[in-house]
Amino acid sequence: MSQKTEISSLGEFGLIRHLTDKIELKNESTIKGVGDDAAVLEYGDKQTLVTTDLLLEGIHFDLTYVPLKHLGYKSAIVNFSDIYAMNGQPKQITVSIGISKRFSVEDLEELYSGIQLACDIYGVDLVGGDTSASMTGLAISITCIGEGEKGKVVYRHGAKETDLICVSGDLGAAYMGLQLLEREKNVFKGQKDFTPDFAGKEYLLERQLKPEARKDIIKALAQAGIVPTAMMDISDGLSSELLHIAKESKVGCQVYEDRIPIDYQTAAMAEQFNMNLVTAALNGGEDYELLFTVPLTEHDKISQMKGIKVIGHITKPELGNYLIGRDGGEIELKAQGWNSLN
Amino acid sequence: MSQKTEISSLGEFGLIRHLTDKIELKNESTIKGVGDDAAVLEYGDKQTLVTTDLLLEGIHFDLTYVPLKHLGYKSAIVNFSDIYAMNGQPKQITVSIGISKRFSVEDLEELYSGIQLACDIYGVDLVGGDTSASMTGLAISITCIGEGEKGKVVYRHGAKETDLICVSGDLGAAYMGLQLLEREKNVFKGQKDFTPDFAGKEYLLERQLKPEARKDIIKALAQAGIVPTAMMDISDGLSSELLHIAKESKVGCQVYEDRIPIDYQTAAMAEQFNMNLVTAALNGGEDYELLFTVPLTEHDKISQMKGIKVIGHITKPELGNYLIGRDGGEIELKAQGWNSLN
Repeated sequence: MSQKTEISSLGEFGLIRHLTDKIELKNESTIKGVGDDAAVLEYGDKQTLVTTDLLLEGIHFDLTYVPLKHLGYKSAIVNFSDIYAMNGQPKQITVSIGISKRFSVEDLEELYSGIQLACDIYGVDLVGGDTSASMTGLAISITCIGEGEKGKVVYRHGAKETDLICVSGDLGAAYMGLQLLEREKNVFKGQKDFTPDFAGKEYLLERQLKPEARKDIIKALAQAGIVPTAMMDISDGLSSELLHIAKESKVGCQVYEDRIPIDYQTAAMAEQFNMNLVTAALNGGEDYELLFTVPLTEHDKISQMKGIKVIGHITKPELGNYLIGRDGGEIELKAQGWNSLN
Repeated sequence: MSQKTEISSLGEFGLIRHLTDKIELKNESTIKGVGDDAAVLEYGDKQTLVTTDLLLEGIHFDLTYVPLKHLGYKSAIVNFSDIYAMNGQPKQITVSIGISKRFSVEDLEELYSGIQLACDIYGVDLVGGDTSASMTGLAISITCIGEGEKGKVVYRHGAKETDLICVSGDLGAAYMGLQLLEREKNVFKGQKDFTPDFAGKEYLLERQLKPEARKDIIKALAQAGIVPTAMMDISDGLSSELLHIAKESKVGCQVYEDRIPIDYQTAAMAEQFNMNLVTAALNGGEDYELLFTVPLTEHDKISQMKGIKVIGHITKPELGNYLIGRDGGEIELKAQGWNSLN
């Protein structure tokens, strides 16, 4: 955008109004949105879910290659994903933003347009938050409120021995997308007018820059009458999340290397970068896929569901947490075992 | 504290566990607190209130003179205050923190101990959040969930002509406390072993460093059977908040200079600093007192209540928003009319 409006020209309240005055409330449970000391929600017999994320420039995102609209979209999605991971439905979000002087009103509009787009697609109301100055970069804090049915909210602690371990979609692509963006940034630093060629790698970029939350999987599970025994979203990497479920459920787990779903582009990129593909899939993070466990009795149902893969099973706790390699060898799962990735 | 533990020695999950494993849940409505993708709350016939605040180092606080425990306490209090300002009760908070490398585990413990102290005193559960790295300073994002009774939640938009305008406590002290701290910081910059003498100014410092939320006033109003027609907490200054209520309620307002409650220490400090006392009280901010309106018929009841002062009344919108001075002169209220204060 060429037009740049100084944020100071609107003032804080003017800015909030400017950014939020077009918001239409979508949920019956939203009694009052932006514009008072607090939002007012009303739930009947539902359980209320709350999740929050703080994203800081230079740590969680790099504006060199992340467009603000995409950043807004992703910031909202990662919170929705946490609500789906409880088998719930996201309903409201609050958005607080800290901005330094280098940002213009148009920049914030871009950011908010991405947040609003995510809200529109997922049926979520933006109900509050604030905007303030920041000394350095951009800080985004989002809180999402959702609802879950009583008795159907899924925690991390419910996995039982012999349960099947399932994942949705495929893993490692978001991480490969990040590697790709970082490489282009480093190689072409300082070269003006450079447009990197990402042909054939679009999926990796999309997974990194514009991830989706698996609302469809939650719906499909409900339609199939399956309530997972434990569930999480994969934000820090499969390995780390498996260990969370194992620890909280007081069980062990075994997953099989040849069962881990990996997209063709992810595999090709790993080879090009001379990286271990399984390492990327296990530890990459930011996939926002769902990791869940279901009773063994659901095997026939779950193995026929599109976009879901059974990758292993839950074991007794004393058996530990292992990946069984293609060659039959066992590798102990560690949350941050591959330091080069962190 | 002399001991300094590198945060990296605990890891992210270890750090969260370390900071949150002693939390005891206090509210029946808290089904699940820290440790899953989202907190789970359950409300019956109550309305759910949500408020959020993002506090950034160098903008919202200065660690030169704000102890971390106080900062934690205040960060929680400002959110509770927003829920009370809706005539609700705060019940849960989530806390997300971004920290740079200069902070140790002990620093975070201090910060959390202040947050936890506020939670204990006000009966609030800490139910979630996360901790991540930050490139520069400290960032604190708190979201507070509260409940309100149906039909008794108080918005900004309900003030009616002839309503009385009331404030709790006294105004301007927190701002004077800030001026005092800033002066000491500037005067004695670089002098080691300097302990400033704050004797006789303790109230000002307390109001700035360790404010309280007016839970007691909400309780007293309920006991007196008074439901305000409009209410806000005073975080940006009386003038700014009056304008919010006037705008949202589509009314005007008149308040009287000689009715604005000001503590003796605030007045003494203003004289010493050669500052306009009323300006400080009108625009100082961070008082976290309650500003509310009640029907004229409540006059006898409200004027007998301890800690509440009637400072003016609501007028027709075309009469505008004015402060009537001690000399009878009218000053138009402006949100940021005294630029020297901003």
